[in-house]
Amino acid sequence: MATLGFIEYKDASPEVRAVYDDIMATRKTDWINNFWKAIANDPALLKRTWEDIKQIMAPGALDPLTKEMLYVAVSVSNQCDYCIASHTVSAQKKGMTDQMFKELMAVVAMANETNRLSAGYQVEIDEQFKSDGWT
Amino acid sequence: MATLGFIEYKDASPEVRAVYDDIMATRKTDWINNFWKAIANDPALLKRTWEDIKQIMAPGALDPLTKEMLYVAVSVSNQCDYCIASHTVSAQKKGMTDQMFKELMAVVAMANETNRLSAGYQVEIDEQFKSDGWT
Amino acid sequence: MATLGFIEYKDASPEVRAVYDDIMATRKTDWINNFWKAIANDPALLKRTWEDIKQIMAPGALDPLTKEMLYVAVSVSNQCDYCIASHTVSAQKKGMTDQMFKELMAVVAMANETNRLSAGYQVEIDEQFKSDGWT
Amino acid sequence: MATLGFIEYKDASPEVRAVYDDIMATRKTDWINNFWKAIANDPALLKRTWEDIKQIMAPGALDPLTKEMLYVAVSVSNQCDYCIASHTVSAQKKGMTDQMFKELMAVVAMANETNRLSAGYQVEIDEQFKSDGWT
Amino acid sequence: MATLGFIEYKDASPEVRAVYDDIMATRKTDWINNFWKAIANDPALLKRTWEDIKQIMAPGALDPLTKEMLYVAVSVSNQCDYCIASHTVSAQKKGMTDQMFKELMAVVAMANETNRLSAGYQVEIDEQFKSDGWT
Amino acid sequence: MATLGFIEYKDASPEVRAVYDDIMATRKTDWINNFWKAIANDPALLKRTWEDIKQIMAPGALDPLTKEMLYVAVSVSNQCDYCIASHTVSAQKKGMTDQMFKELMAVVAMANETNRLSAGYQVEIDEQFKSDGWT
Repeated sequence: MATLGFIEYKDASPEVRAVYDDIMATRKTDWINNFWKAIANDPALLKRTWEDIKQIMAPGALDPLTKEMLYVAVSVSNQCDYCIASHTVSAQKKGMTDQMFKELMAVVAMANETNRLSAGYQVEIDEQFKSDGWT
Repeated sequence: MATLGFIEYKDASPEVRAVYDDIMATRKTDWINNFWKAIANDPALLKRTWEDIKQIMAPGALDPLTKEMLYVAVSVSNQCDYCIASHTVSAQKKGMTDQMFKELMAVVAMANETNRLSAGYQVEIDEQFKSDGWT
Repeated sequence: MATLGFIEYKDASPEVRAVYDDIMATRKTDWINNFWKAIANDPALLKRTWEDIKQIMAPGALDPLTKEMLYVAVSVSNQCDYCIASHTVSAQKKGMTDQMFKELMAVVAMANETNRLSAGYQVEIDEQFKSDGWT
Repeated sequence: MATLGFIEYKDASPEVRAVYDDIMATRKTDWINNFWKAIANDPALLKRTWEDIKQIMAPGALDPLTKEMLYVAVSVSNQCDYCIASHTVSAQKKGMTDQMFKELMAVVAMANETNRLSAGYQVEIDEQFKSDGWT
Repeated sequence: MATLGFIEYKDASPEVRAVYDDIMATRKTDWINNFWKAIANDPALLKRTWEDIKQIMAPGALDPLTKEMLYVAVSVSNQCDYCIASHTVSAQKKGMTDQMFKELMAVVAMANETNRLSAGYQVEIDEQFKSDGWT
Repeated sequence: MATLGFIEYKDASPEVRAVYDDIMATRKTDWINNFWKAIANDPALLKRTWEDIKQIMAPGALDPLTKEMLYVAVSVSNQCDYCIASHTVSAQKKGMTDQMFKELMAVVAMANETNRLSAGYQVEIDEQFKSDGWT
């Protein structure tokens, strides 16, 4: 079991339950996944993390599916098993098709490859890529 | 300068020039950035990498801008300065607005945060996230 | 310059200025470092990040200096140049002596070494280390 | 089982047994965890690693608990499952309370987040953070 | 099971079978390991990855065993469990003795240690190490 | 300059000088690179690190050049600029030709790519790759 165990809904404080309720309402599901039940041991962290994620993953200039795929891309680069598993499912629920998943993986793999080539060949940054606050 | 120096167009072999020409034609630019000039020391690598990237970054189920932002997401997670600089510019050229960049950064930062929370709290993967080949 | 440039105090919106003022008051300094001026392009991110950091880095069961050294440890493992530079100075301001810095570095280096030994030798987790929610 | 298997005490050479004995005496336990039994296949590595750790983790300007929490911070950033499991238990044995663990996690997660923000926004290091050997 | 499940030989398209056949012929084995069966869901990725690996891992200025050990070194640094397991076996089949494995691990661990010391101590690159294209 | 500055030979304690002398004698050079001058602020670390490296990098079942290339492979995966610069030069001094460097880079890049594919596709480890202590 997780380091400090899981906080189940029935055992949760009102503060934690309020977050759980909001997670389920926002995601239109009736269960809470282990990540939240683990960090609920720290109610302030639970609340802060959920509110940050809710704000960040909401529709904006980028749609929720694109954001979810970005989440998968980072999780794969970091070799985070839990995050790969959970965010892949989330992305699928938001509409990621198998074809989109395949292209996502291909880009992530390629980026990890060329990241090391540029480091290993000690490539200097081109003047053209140096920004000057081009807002 | 890069480890093995740069191969400029005027000094390049016909094999390397062919790749350079294709890069410039595909990208509709008239210059070659340092990354390619560095790895051109290994013409087989240059050709293979360019052809892979050309195939992977082409429009598909994901559009080129989304792919470019995924590239940025990975490069930022890996702390690859060159790749961050070059792919941020590429994404901007493909239409990434400042607002999109900001949302991209917020997601990448958040993912790096929760990746460590799930690892640090030693969270087990929920049964619901275990895949069974749901094609 | 940073990707979207820096937001200087004189050019900042009231919303951003309020965060800047709080940073300076909290840290008892009269300047804002580049990190904040860069992410101030996204006022929501600026506010959220500052409030999270302020809450997280405040005295608690761990004192601020210990927290700052943990920040350095992570930044060094991630090879983040900016963060190493800034948090090393912050730790020094909070009382980190040269001797403490040296011991911090030795631990970080050692941990990075044994992390790879345990991965490379494919060491299974001992039953004794598997948690059962030992609160 | 680990790549080269485990060297149990009863099968160990006198050289390896001497290290095992010292580990158990130093830690006041009567068992050896898998990490040591795995790297004992390389007695020189076993001896060197143990002696380094013993020296590095001993009380100094930083106390053993702080050092152990730094170890956890690095292991979490590196996503090293074995190291997270073992060093979390070690830290608990040295006095890490649940509250301290929670604050540790919050700092590690936050640092991983801002490490990527500073990289992604391409923030230059402030002059004030550039060191000049301020011993 | 893997995200999109595995493509078994009997269910594979002619395109995928051709790659499987080449893998088995090249490696002189009669089975296909999970990695290939997982990425075979994307036949273009399967073909590209196999052809790249076949070309890259072939004898050249570096012999296949050295290349395989480099593969292990990277996989260990990245904490990639699957890759550590599979490439360690591959290296053993190509002649890596236990003694070679032990030295490989020692170097990888040491490199991960000094990588962080140079970052943490903020060591500038010596003029003597700056390249000028010394072909 | 580095965090705690550099310890030059003329200012060094006898203990540090002894290590410097051994480094120069072992490497048959007449200068000390910045890495050592930076960590010399912690004489115990300097001595321990040098003795470990001297032992680990010495000829064994793997020759010094192979070991140096493994060092480069790890440093590139970790995006450690200083280590890439210094160990690339070291490898060249030990006989790494341009062709060997190119093949080294190709393997490192490829490994970083497939590391993420196996993580992203959530590939289970084949039974055939699970070790049972095959000494």
